Amino acid sequence: MEKQELLYEGKAKKIFRTSDPDKYWVAYKDDATAFNGEKKGTIAGKGTLNNRITSIFFRLLKNRGIDNHFLEELSANEQLVRKVDIIPLEVVVRNLAAGSLAKRLGMAEGTALPRPVVEFYYKDDALGDPLVNHSHIKVLEIATSAELAELEQKGLEINEILKAYLAERNVLLVDFKLEFGRTEDGRILLADEISPDTCRFWDAKTKEKLDKDRFRRDLGNVEQAYQEMLHRLGGDIHA
Amino acid sequence: MEKQELLYEGKAKKIFRTSDPDKYWVAYKDDATAFNGEKKGTIAGKGTLNNRITSIFFRLLKNRGIDNHFLEELSANEQLVRKVDIIPLEVVVRNLAAGSLAKRLGMAEGTALPRPVVEFYYKDDALGDPLVNHSHIKVLEIATSAELAELEQKGLEINEILKAYLAERNVLLVDFKLEFGRTEDGRILLADEISPDTCRFWDAKTKEKLDKDRFRRDLGNVEQAYQEMLHRLGGDIHA
Ligand SMILES: Nc1ncnc2c1ncn2[C@@H]1O[C@H](COP(=O)(O)OP(=O)(O)OP(=O)(O)O)[C@@H](O)[C@H]1O
Ligand SMILES: Nc1ncnc2c1ncn2[C@@H]1O[C@H](COP(=O)(O)OP(=O)(O)OP(=O)(O)O)[C@@H](O)[C@H]1O
Ligand SMILES: [Mg+2]
Ligand SMILES: [Mg+2]
Repeated sequence: MEKQELLYEGKAKKIFRTSDPDKYWVAYKDDATAFNGEKKGTIAGKGTLNNRITSIFFRLLKNRGIDNHFLEELSANEQLVRKVDIIPLEVVVRNLAAGSLAKRLGMAEGTALPRPVVEFYYKDDALGDPLVNHSHIKVLEIATSAELAELEQKGLEINEILKAYLAERNVLLVDFKLEFGRTEDGRILLADEISPDTCRFWDAKTKEKLDKDRFRRDLGNVEQAYQEMLHRLGGDIHA
Repeated sequence: MEKQELLYEGKAKKIFRTSDPDKYWVAYKDDATAFNGEKKGTIAGKGTLNNRITSIFFRLLKNRGIDNHFLEELSANEQLVRKVDIIPLEVVVRNLAAGSLAKRLGMAEGTALPRPVVEFYYKDDALGDPLVNHSHIKVLEIATSAELAELEQKGLEINEILKAYLAERNVLLVDFKLEFGRTEDGRILLADEISPDTCRFWDAKTKEKLDKDRFRRDLGNVEQAYQEMLHRLGGDIHA
C-alpha cells in the first residue's frame, strides 16, 4: 500500500489517498480542539494513543459483528481504512447525563439515564453542529427513515458492546459519538474514530475523567488520562 | 357556568376554575412577551382578537374531526374549555423555514420546505424550552412512542386543514405551535390556543407578516396585523 496525496486535513486527522481507490490512509494528529474550534491546543502523543485506542475498539467491534472501516494499523499514528461517503451526522449515544444533555434537560452531570439516549447532530461547523430530529434530517435529505433506524440500532448495539467491555476494565462509558458512511455497494459502515477525543470515559470507582473533558475544562494530566485509557485496554505502547 | 378562583396566570392567558370540575374558564390577556419573557409589552385588543381567532380555528378543527378542548365563547376575551393535563411539549409544525429552524439548518427565511417539519420542544421556561427528540422525551417520561406518533400525526393533519383554510383567505401558514393534553378518560385533546401569538401567518402575495413577529422584531402595526387576520377569517368584532 502506498500513501498518496493529502485529501483532507481535519482537526484531529489527515486523510490521504492510496494506490487502492477504495482505501484511505489516516494519520492521527496531536492537535486538540474544543468548542467548535474556539479552543486549540496540542496533547503530546495523542495521535499515537488515539490510533491505538481506535484500532482496539474497531477490531473488537468487527469481532462482534459490527461492520466498520478499519483495515490495519500502518504505524504508531497511522491506519488504513475503507473509504466511505461519510453521512454528515454525529450519532451520539449516552448512558449518563453530561455535557450538552445535562444542560438541555436540566440534569446534574453524572445522573444515570433510565435508558440510553440517542441523538443526531448535523455535521456542519458553520452551524455549530446543531441537534436535529428525524424530520430535519429528511428535509436536509441526509438519510431515509430506514437508515436512521439502522443508525440508532447500531449506535445502541455498539453501546452495549463497549459498555460491557469497558466495565470489565473499570471504566464507565458515559457517552460517545459515532460517524457512519456509505460504501459504493450501498452498505452502511461505522467509520471515523472511537477514542478519548470522541467519548466520555470515567473511572468506574473514582469517577475521574479519562477523556477530552480534561482538555476542555483545563483539568490537567490530559496526556496521562489518554495513556491510562490505552493501558486499561491492554494496548500499552512499548518503545 | 360560574367563574371561580384563578388557578394559573400565564404570559398570555388566565385560567380559572369553574363550578364544573371538568371545565376551565380562560381569559385572554393583552400582554405580549417574546424571547422566553425577555421582551415584554402590550398589544391593545390582543385578548379579544386571540380569543376570537382561537375560537374560529378550534371550531373549524372540531368540524374536521380534530378533538379539542374548546367548548364556547363566554365574552369578548373569554372562553370555556375542557380541562386537560397538559403534556409539557410544544408541537411545532413548519411549512417554510423561519425563526429557529432557519438558524438551525442554515436556510434563508421563507425557504419552502419539501415536506412539513415537526418538532418537539420541552415546555420548561428555566431551560429555555429546548428542542428535544423522542429519546429525550422517553427519558423525561413525558410521553410514550405511541403518543409521540399520535402527536406528530395530529400535528400534520391540523397543518393540512389550517393550510388549506388559510390559503383560501390569502394567508400563507409558515409555522405554528400546538399544545395537547390528556383527559381523565385517557384521550389526547388539542388544547391551548391557535392565534397570531402562536403561528407565523404571511400574506400570500406580499409576504407581509400578520403575526407576533411584528412585535418580536419591532415592525410596527402589531394590533392591525392581528385585526387583519381576524378580518380574513371572517370574524370581525362589531362593537
Ligand atoms: N472511512 C472514511 N472514509 C472517508 N472519510 C472518513 C472516513 N473516516 C473518517 N472520515 C472523515 O475524515 C475526517 C477526519 O478528520 P477529523 O476527525 O480530523 O475531522 P474533523 O476536524 O473532526 O472535521 P469534520 O467536521 O469533517 O469531522 C472527518 O471529516 C471524517 O468524517
Ligand atoms: N384545556 C386546558 N386545560 C389545562 N390547561 C390548559 C388548557 N389549555 C391551555 N392550558 C395551559 O394554560 C396555560 C395558558 O396560559 P399561557 O398561554 O398564558 O401560558 P404561558 O405563559 O404560555 O406559559 P406556559 O409556559 O405554561 O405555556 C398554559 O400553561 C397552557 O398550557
Ligand atoms: Mg472528527
Ligand atoms: Mg402559552
